[in-house]
Amino acid sequence: MADKAQIQEAIKVQGEVVRKLKSEKASKEQIDEEVSKLLQLKAQIGGDDGKHQFVLKTAKGTRDYNPKQMAIREKVFNTILGCFKRHGAETIDTPVFELKETLTGKYGEDSKLIYDLKDQGGELLSLRYDLTVPFARYLAMNKITNIKRYHIAKVYRRDNPAMTRGRYREFYQCDFDIAGQYDAMIPDAECLKIVYEILSELDIGDFRIKVNDRRILDGMFAVCGVPDDKFRTICSTVDKLDKMSWEEVRKEMVSEKGLSEEAADQIGEYVSLQGGMELAERLLQDQKMSQSKQACAGLTDIKLLFSYLQLFQVTDKVVFDLSLARGLDYYTGIIYEGVLTQTGIAAEAQNASGAEESVSVGSVAGGGRYDGLVGMFDPKGRKVPCVGVSIGIERIFSIMEQKAEASAQRVRTTEVQVMVVSAQKNLLEERLKLLTELWSAGIKAEVIYKKNPKLLSQLQYCEDSGIPLVAILGEQELKDGVVKLRAVATREEADISRADLIAEIKRRTSEA
Amino acid sequence: MADKAQIQEAIKVQGEVVRKLKSEKASKEQIDEEVSKLLQLKAQIGGDDGKHQFVLKTAKGTRDYNPKQMAIREKVFNTILGCFKRHGAETIDTPVFELKETLTGKYGEDSKLIYDLKDQGGELLSLRYDLTVPFARYLAMNKITNIKRYHIAKVYRRDNPAMTRGRYREFYQCDFDIAGQYDAMIPDAECLKIVYEILSELDIGDFRIKVNDRRILDGMFAVCGVPDDKFRTICSTVDKLDKMSWEEVRKEMVSEKGLSEEAADQIGEYVSLQGGMELAERLLQDQKMSQSKQACAGLTDIKLLFSYLQLFQVTDKVVFDLSLARGLDYYTGIIYEGVLTQTGIAAEAQNASGAEESVSVGSVAGGGRYDGLVGMFDPKGRKVPCVGVSIGIERIFSIMEQKAEASAQRVRTTEVQVMVVSAQKNLLEERLKLLTELWSAGIKAEVIYKKNPKLLSQLQYCEDSGIPLVAILGEQELKDGVVKLRAVATREEADISRADLIAEIKRRTSEA
Repeated sequence: MADKAQIQEAIKVQGEVVRKLKSEKASKEQIDEEVSKLLQLKAQIGGDDGKHQFVLKTAKGTRDYNPKQMAIREKVFNTILGCFKRHGAETIDTPVFELKETLTGKYGEDSKLIYDLKDQGGELLSLRYDLTVPFARYLAMNKITNIKRYHIAKVYRRDNPAMTRGRYREFYQCDFDIAGQYDAMIPDAECLKIVYEILSELDIGDFRIKVNDRRILDGMFAVCGVPDDKFRTICSTVDKLDKMSWEEVRKEMVSEKGLSEEAADQIGEYVSLQGGMELAERLLQDQKMSQSKQACAGLTDIKLLFSYLQLFQVTDKVVFDLSLARGLDYYTGIIYEGVLTQTGIAAEAQNASGAEESVSVGSVAGGGRYDGLVGMFDPKGRKVPCVGVSIGIERIFSIMEQKAEASAQRVRTTEVQVMVVSAQKNLLEERLKLLTELWSAGIKAEVIYKKNPKLLSQLQYCEDSGIPLVAILGEQELKDGVVKLRAVATREEADISRADLIAEIKRRTSEA
Repeated sequence: MADKAQIQEAIKVQGEVVRKLKSEKASKEQIDEEVSKLLQLKAQIGGDDGKHQFVLKTAKGTRDYNPKQMAIREKVFNTILGCFKRHGAETIDTPVFELKETLTGKYGEDSKLIYDLKDQGGELLSLRYDLTVPFARYLAMNKITNIKRYHIAKVYRRDNPAMTRGRYREFYQCDFDIAGQYDAMIPDAECLKIVYEILSELDIGDFRIKVNDRRILDGMFAVCGVPDDKFRTICSTVDKLDKMSWEEVRKEMVSEKGLSEEAADQIGEYVSLQGGMELAERLLQDQKMSQSKQACAGLTDIKLLFSYLQLFQVTDKVVFDLSLARGLDYYTGIIYEGVLTQTGIAAEAQNASGAEESVSVGSVAGGGRYDGLVGMFDPKGRKVPCVGVSIGIERIFSIMEQKAEASAQRVRTTEVQVMVVSAQKNLLEERLKLLTELWSAGIKAEVIYKKNPKLLSQLQYCEDSGIPLVAILGEQELKDGVVKLRAVATREEADISRADLIAEIKRRTSEA
């Protein structure tokens, strides 16, 4: 533990940092971060009044989900889950942390973003960075050579958060993968079909699915004269083409990474190409490209892939794009990415909310073939070919949330069908009895937890939370053996005998 | 990084540890743990052949869920979720880690079990230990004074794992809490009703719900002559009565915690009492107990609670038990615990699996009232009264898993309704076309990812995975515009026209 004088010194320094940023009119995000550090330091020695002061916030780059956000999230999950199940996938779950070494050497330059746990004795652990590496570890550990599985869970990256654009340090991935030795491109085509179905069903605007192949990239680098040991680093520069102009990318290749200008320009010609099956055919005839066996193998597979995509009726959104690279080390064949093109709803939601930069266009799905990853875990190096896709739903949430805010429609956060209320005093016991009957019959019901709540406040609660029916109890109703059933929307009321009540509630709520 | 010589020395030492344990015939668990440490050390310098050796395991105290286990887990979740929704709860989600200080001072002696994250710059973080403290932080942060919410998520404790008995370091909690200023005991009674409903519906054998009140415990300690500053520590000793005999508990109180023998004996008389409303009435008349205002307030509430429990029709399983203590610091009123009494199915599953100690009796639900916790987070100390319950499902899983293993019934891990197969070669394209039609109609369907799979292996796959229908395509069927639909169970086949196929599949699978 640092002593009190040290902390007080640190508080003084940090106070200066905050004042300086404020005087410089730094960004709100930056100031908030430094203020938060200051508050945490202060918390360590207690506040001015000697009382412990809490910093009331979630960890940087994370957020809570309130009930309304959860309702939207559930809707997104159900769409994705429905698609995964329609395609016959099983599901597994793995722990949120893995042995540190399990993650080592799988993510290239991004490894620095892995969260480690503190060494409290015992094993060294890290939070999972994605669901793919734990999946490969699971397959090798259980000697599984065939499985089609989905996994929806949170992953962790110490990345620079940009929360308004849906980039968090804790976020969900929805993964679908097919492992097994099968005939070429059939499982790969199904993964693309899944991206197509999910992005269509979610109804968040137009999209494209870009496709490329690691072997085509490597072949292209070879025929353009990139030295073997520069493939990876040049590849990660190409990967930036969705955020940077070609000029900037070219500059990075030549100035930072020491590539010759001629090689860079040749790459430039290829990575500007986009098309479909016919582009793959043309490149197979291309004098330079056809010199690379690797590239030819990739191009032949792209052709075959497109023939299956035609049968799956998804070619209207799929583009063979030679600029698609994807950063992760473990891909070995086909790679792809689903991107929103920000026409349609995404843009509408932006305009409606008035904030032009509030939703960024971007990748919402990605994946590819990784035939070597499982072998890295197998003691004898036995390979299990795999292909998969990961849907990144935080951006999708951001869009759906803004859509919900822009629309007048109310999002219900419970499924309560009926509220049991009383019109007079001293009827709590009768309310609880009726409530018990309703619960026993499987009806979703609640009461206000007060002995004598006002009728108006009970009815208001129903209006606010969207409960469709009210069961009203009064002295007269009890005497007559009935319940007054009120429809909240129309305010119509009818006396229903206790014996018929459950059937009547079920009838009315199944209509809706 | 430690240098290679250091690691090799550590490997030598660790090798000795393992050899010693083996020669002493130590427990398998203990040996496995030390072997795992040895393998991790070896992994750091690479194996004998210079190739990197992986330790293929999950972190200590954690486990993967395979598809069959996931199917069972889903069933348990659906029961719990159904109950929470029937009672009208909303849901929220919070991050898996919190600022370290958010968790500080909430768990008493158990705080040492909290997982910390490594300090990689920025905030100090810890994995959540339960869902209650993050919930209280959420309420204070968002100034929420009224909510009924459920939260199903994993929590983390560096506890000594006992995996065969369902005690893990990563485990699910299913929490239901009611926050708000309401009339006494109404929300509290609903929490007990929820435990009752869930344990009944899960059908895992007989159970009891023990109830007590922190104020009764404190009052009892006071009238028995326990010094004020020993309440907490004596309370955590009483909490051990479910695992230790009274003699052992008494010994700990007197020898370790320095309580007088007279005080211990007086406590012993009270904590042996069990009953219902009538016990609360008797204790209100008890000469000693009635001297404590606190105890009287608790006893009066227990009486009121039982009157509501009668209306909720759950008193047959609820016991007022003065030995129930519960360790956590934050409880202020009613506390309760659901325990399986190991008659019925839990025991049956044990007998069937032949392992007598494989399922232990124990607490599967617990909770209570914590009126002060939210105030600990509020800058002005504003209180929000809360009561809640947490269902611990790992033990329930263990029982359900063994039940499933003991029964002959197959657990399906997918929901596939129909498999598209071909009887002849070269019909992959036709299979994919039909598959696309089925998916478009929302039917769960799959194919084998091979160009020319054997008919028999396709049918075998359906048998193995429980797919009820097979759609068979052959040259003749294609010519006739039909599909041969086969029921896997009965092996009956019928030609169905392509136009009627989807309706026929829907009809047949909705019957099942």
